[in-house]
Amino acid sequence: MNHQEGLTAYIAAFVAELVHAGVKDIVISPGSRSTPIALVMAEHPELNLHIHVDERSAAFFGLGIAKATKKPVALLCTSGTAAANYYPAIIEATISRVPLIVLTADRPHELRDVGAPQAIDQIHLYGHNVKWFVEMSPPEGKESMIRYARTVCARAAATATRYPAGPVHLNFPLREPLIPNLDGQLFELQERQKGYVDIHDGKLTLSNETFKSLASALDSEKNGVIICGPIDDAEFMEAVVDFANQLQFPILADPLSQLRSGHHNQELIIDGYDTFLRFEDSKKVLKPEVVIRLGAMPVSKALSTFLTENRDIPQIVVDGGSGWRDPLTAATEMVHCDESLFCRTISEYIKPREHSVYLEKWKSINEHTKLKLSAIRDIPELSEGKLFHLLADMLPENATLFVGNSMPIRDLDSFFFANKKGIKVMGNRGANGIDGIVSTALGVATVSQPLYLVLGDLTFFHDLNGLVAAKLFKLNVTVLLINNNGGGIFSFLPQAEHPKHFEMLFGTPLELDFQHVIEMYGGSYEKVHDWDHYHQVFANDFQASGLRVLEISTDRDRNLSEHRDLWKSVSQEISEVIKSGNYEH
Amino acid sequence: MNHQEGLTAYIAAFVAELVHAGVKDIVISPGSRSTPIALVMAEHPELNLHIHVDERSAAFFGLGIAKATKKPVALLCTSGTAAANYYPAIIEATISRVPLIVLTADRPHELRDVGAPQAIDQIHLYGHNVKWFVEMSPPEGKESMIRYARTVCARAAATATRYPAGPVHLNFPLREPLIPNLDGQLFELQERQKGYVDIHDGKLTLSNETFKSLASALDSEKNGVIICGPIDDAEFMEAVVDFANQLQFPILADPLSQLRSGHHNQELIIDGYDTFLRFEDSKKVLKPEVVIRLGAMPVSKALSTFLTENRDIPQIVVDGGSGWRDPLTAATEMVHCDESLFCRTISEYIKPREHSVYLEKWKSINEHTKLKLSAIRDIPELSEGKLFHLLADMLPENATLFVGNSMPIRDLDSFFFANKKGIKVMGNRGANGIDGIVSTALGVATVSQPLYLVLGDLTFFHDLNGLVAAKLFKLNVTVLLINNNGGGIFSFLPQAEHPKHFEMLFGTPLELDFQHVIEMYGGSYEKVHDWDHYHQVFANDFQASGLRVLEISTDRDRNLSEHRDLWKSVSQEISEVIKSGNYEH
Repeated sequence: MNHQEGLTAYIAAFVAELVHAGVKDIVISPGSRSTPIALVMAEHPELNLHIHVDERSAAFFGLGIAKATKKPVALLCTSGTAAANYYPAIIEATISRVPLIVLTADRPHELRDVGAPQAIDQIHLYGHNVKWFVEMSPPEGKESMIRYARTVCARAAATATRYPAGPVHLNFPLREPLIPNLDGQLFELQERQKGYVDIHDGKLTLSNETFKSLASALDSEKNGVIICGPIDDAEFMEAVVDFANQLQFPILADPLSQLRSGHHNQELIIDGYDTFLRFEDSKKVLKPEVVIRLGAMPVSKALSTFLTENRDIPQIVVDGGSGWRDPLTAATEMVHCDESLFCRTISEYIKPREHSVYLEKWKSINEHTKLKLSAIRDIPELSEGKLFHLLADMLPENATLFVGNSMPIRDLDSFFFANKKGIKVMGNRGANGIDGIVSTALGVATVSQPLYLVLGDLTFFHDLNGLVAAKLFKLNVTVLLINNNGGGIFSFLPQAEHPKHFEMLFGTPLELDFQHVIEMYGGSYEKVHDWDHYHQVFANDFQASGLRVLEISTDRDRNLSEHRDLWKSVSQEISEVIKSGNYEH
Repeated sequence: MNHQEGLTAYIAAFVAELVHAGVKDIVISPGSRSTPIALVMAEHPELNLHIHVDERSAAFFGLGIAKATKKPVALLCTSGTAAANYYPAIIEATISRVPLIVLTADRPHELRDVGAPQAIDQIHLYGHNVKWFVEMSPPEGKESMIRYARTVCARAAATATRYPAGPVHLNFPLREPLIPNLDGQLFELQERQKGYVDIHDGKLTLSNETFKSLASALDSEKNGVIICGPIDDAEFMEAVVDFANQLQFPILADPLSQLRSGHHNQELIIDGYDTFLRFEDSKKVLKPEVVIRLGAMPVSKALSTFLTENRDIPQIVVDGGSGWRDPLTAATEMVHCDESLFCRTISEYIKPREHSVYLEKWKSINEHTKLKLSAIRDIPELSEGKLFHLLADMLPENATLFVGNSMPIRDLDSFFFANKKGIKVMGNRGANGIDGIVSTALGVATVSQPLYLVLGDLTFFHDLNGLVAAKLFKLNVTVLLINNNGGGIFSFLPQAEHPKHFEMLFGTPLELDFQHVIEMYGGSYEKVHDWDHYHQVFANDFQASGLRVLEISTDRDRNLSEHRDLWKSVSQEISEVIKSGNYEH
C-alpha cells in the first residue's frame, strides 16, 4: 500500500467511525496540513460541514451546535496558531460540560521543533483543559492501524460524551503529499458492518443504604428548599418537579435550569429570589433547615450569600458528573449520583407531605416581589431591566433565548419570570466569558429556531467575526443588542466608588456604530428609539429572516439607579408583608 | 498591615520593579479580578497603558510593541477565558523570540475547581509555550514578600528578554476586596533606591579553537554562500556584511533579514533567488561548497529545496539562541554562538579574498532575473506581484512595512528588491499564522512611523477586531488590502489540482465589502480601480493620518498564471545566460 492509499484508508476509517459514533456536524477552518481529513469529510454523505475561517469563532460555533444537539461536534483545523485560537471555547466546553472532538492537523515528527513553518508544539496543547489527549500515529493503511484509528475515534466520541461531557483533543501528524484518493468506496467497513466498537457508558447511582440515609435528612417535618442551577435535561425537569412536590419544597430555579418556562407544573417554582434574598428580613423568615442543590452554581449573588449564611444546616449537593460544585464551602453532603436518578430514587424513601407553611412564605414573598418589580414596565426610558421583564411576554412559543454574560444573565435572573411558553434559555456559564457568545448562539441557531440573542456591546464586539456565519450559512437570528457603550457590570462593583481611572480601565467606551458592520454581514439593523418602536420592530421581526439586530441604547449610571430604586421598593413591600404576617398571595 | 495595605504594597512593589526592569508599555484588557494591578499601573507615571477589550488582539498588539521596541511588554487580563485568548500571540512570541510578560489575575486557591464563576485552571495555562511560569504567592505586605514580588518581577523581565527572548507567564491569585489604596507614595523603594536586582545576561560565544576549526571549513578557495533568514539587529547587519566581504560570499537575504533595504553595502546582496533557484540549470552552476546560515528559516521554498539538494556539503547553522533551526536536516555544524560575535570573531581567522568567479555568477543571474521580473511593471491589470514590485519605489524613506503571511510574504520575497531607503520589513514569521496580523502591525505603529501593512483579505478578516486600536489610540497606518476573495495561496498548492470541494474547503470566499467595517472604525477607504488610481491615492496618503485602507482586488486564477508566466520567462533568460557562459551584469 503506497502513501496515498495508506493515508486515505486511515483517515476514511477514522471519519466513518466518527459518523458511527453519532457525530453529524464538523466545523472546519481552512488550512493546508488538514487537507486529507477535510477532503475525506467532504465526501461523507452524512456529515454537515461548516466552514469557518476564524478558528476562535469556529470553535464557539461548534460549541453552540453541541449544546443544542447534545451530540459531540468535531472541530478541524490546520497546524500552528490556528489550534491555539480554539482554546477559549475548549475551556468553556470543559467547564460547561459540552462534548467536542478537537482534531488538529500537525507537522510530522521530523518537522517539529526545527524551525519548520507553521509548526508549534501541539502535544498537550490544551493542557489540563481537555478530558483526553491523543497524539495519533502517523497514518498507515495496515489493518492493525485501521483498527487503531477506529478504536481511538470511538473512544474519543464516547469520552467527549460521557458525563461530565467535555472536549477531547486528537492531534494528527500528517506527511506530504496530503492529497487522499477520493475514488472508490471510502467508508465501507471491512471487518464489522456497523462500526468498530459501541461504547456503553453508565450513570452514577447510590446504594439503597445511602439513599435511605440521605432521605432521613429530608424528614417530612423539615423546612427545605431545592435549588436548581444551570442544567438542561427534560427528564431531570420532570423528576425534580415530582420530587419537590412530594416534599412540598420550593424550587429556586436559575434561569438556565429550564424550569422557568414550559408546560410542567410551576406551582413550586420560585423565580424572584435574586431580588428578595438581598433583604435581611426575607432571609430571616425563609431560613431553611435543609438545602438540596442540583445543577451548576446559580448566577444569583444574593442566593450565594443566602447559602453562605446558612452553612450551619445540611446542604446536599448532587452532581452526576462527580464534580465539586461548591465555591461556598457550604456542602455538608456531596452526592455523586445522576440527578434524575437521585430525584426518582430518593423519593421512594420519603413520605409525601401535604402542606407546608414555610413553602407558602416563599411563594407569597416571591409573588409580592414580582408584583413590585413589574413597576419596571412603567419606565418610559429604554431600560435594561424592562427589556428582560418584557421578554417572556414578547418571545414566541418555543423560542430559544441565548443570553450574554456579565449584566444580561443577571438581569435575566432578576426579571425573566415563570411562563408557559417553552422558552429554552441558554448561555455560556462555564467560564462566563464575554468571548464567543455570538458564535455560540449562531451554532445553536443551526438547530433551534427561532433564536434570540441578548447581549451587551462589549460582548457583541468581542465576537463580531462570529457574525460571518450568519451571512455565509444564511442563519436566522434576532440580536437584542444592549448598547451602554462599555462595561455595564462594573458600575455595580466596588470599583465604581473609585472614579479615578474608572472610565479608562473599567467603563471602556468603544464609541462604535455597529450598524456598519451589521450591514457588511448582510444583516438588518434597527436602532430602537423608544418602547413603541421596540414593540413594532420586534413584531415585524416574526416575518423576517437572516441576521437582524435591534440596538437598544441605555445609560450605565441610570441603569444602576433604576436597579437600586426597584430593590428599595421591593424591600419596603416585603418588610410590610413580613410585619403583617399575612403570606397570602 | 491589613488586607488592603498588604495588597497595595505587594502589587506596587511588583509594578515599580517592572518599570525598573525596562517595561514601558502595558496592554490591559478590562476585567474585575485584575483590578488591583490595573489601578496601580494606572498610577505609575512612567507606564503607557493601552486598553484593549479583545484579549486576542490585545496580545498581538503587545507583541507588535515588543517587536518594535525590542523591550518586554506586559499584558494584563482578568481570570477565565480572557487569558486563553492570549494563546495565539504567546505562541507566536515563543517561536519568533519576542519578550512578553503575561500577567493573569486568578481566583484565589479556595475558589478554584469548585464551580466558582470565571474560574478556570490557569496553572501552566500555556503549557510548554512560555519560557517561565510562576504561580505568584497571594499578596502580602511583609518585607519578605515584597522582596519576593520584586525578585520574581526582575527575573520575569530578564527571562523574557534573555536570548532567545520569549513570553513568561505570572499568575496572580487575588482575594476580594480588590481595591488598592492609591494614596501616598506607592512606588518608593524601601531597601534599595534603584530597584531590587539588576540582571546581567551573557551572550554565547565559542572557544578560539572552535572558531579556528570552523574557519578552516571556510578556506578561501571554497565557493560558499551566506544565507540570512529573518533577524532584526543593526549590529548583526554590519557584521555579516563585513564577514561576507572578507569571504566574497554572496548573501542570500530574506526579506525579513533587514538586508534588502538600507545604507549598508549591498554589493553582495542576492534578492532574486526565490525565482532563479526554481530552475535546475541555475542550481547546477551555483552549487556551493559551503553554506553558512544565520537567522530563522528563510521563507523561500526554492531556497529550502536548494539547501536540501546540497546536503552533501558542509552547512553551518549559527544560532545565538541555542535553537535547532534546521527543518531540512541539512546542517553539518550547529553553532550556538551570538550571530554578530560569530561574524566578527571568525573573520579574524580567515584570509580575506579579493575576487570570486562564483560570486559573479550569483550576481549576474540575480541581475538577469530581476530584469526579467521587472516586466511585471507592464501588466495593466491590478496584480499582486506588481504591487510588491512597486513597493520599494513607492514607500517613503524609513517606512516600516508589515507584511502578512501566506502569499504576501512570498510575493515580497519574489518582488521586493534591494534599495537604499532604510525600509524596515516586519512580519509574524514564528508560527506564520494569519491571526493577529492587524494588531501586531498596529502595535508596531505606536513606535514606528510611517507604517504600511500589506495583507490579504482572509488575514484582514481574521483580526478585524484589531482595528479598534487604530480608532481608540488614534494610530496612523496605511493598509494595502489585497482582496482576492479567499485563500490565494491554495491555488499554488497541490489541492488546486483537485477541483472537487476546492472552493468550499480552500478557496473560502467570504464576499465581504470591508468598506463598512473600516468606516465603523473611523478609517478612510479607497477601492483602487487601476494603477493610475493606485499611484494617486498612495501619494495622497502621505498627507493623511489615521487608519487608511487601500483595497486592491485581484483574481486568484489570474495571479497564478501571472506568476507562472514570469517564472517561465526568467527560466528562459537564465538558461541563455548560462549557455552563453557570459556572467557579466
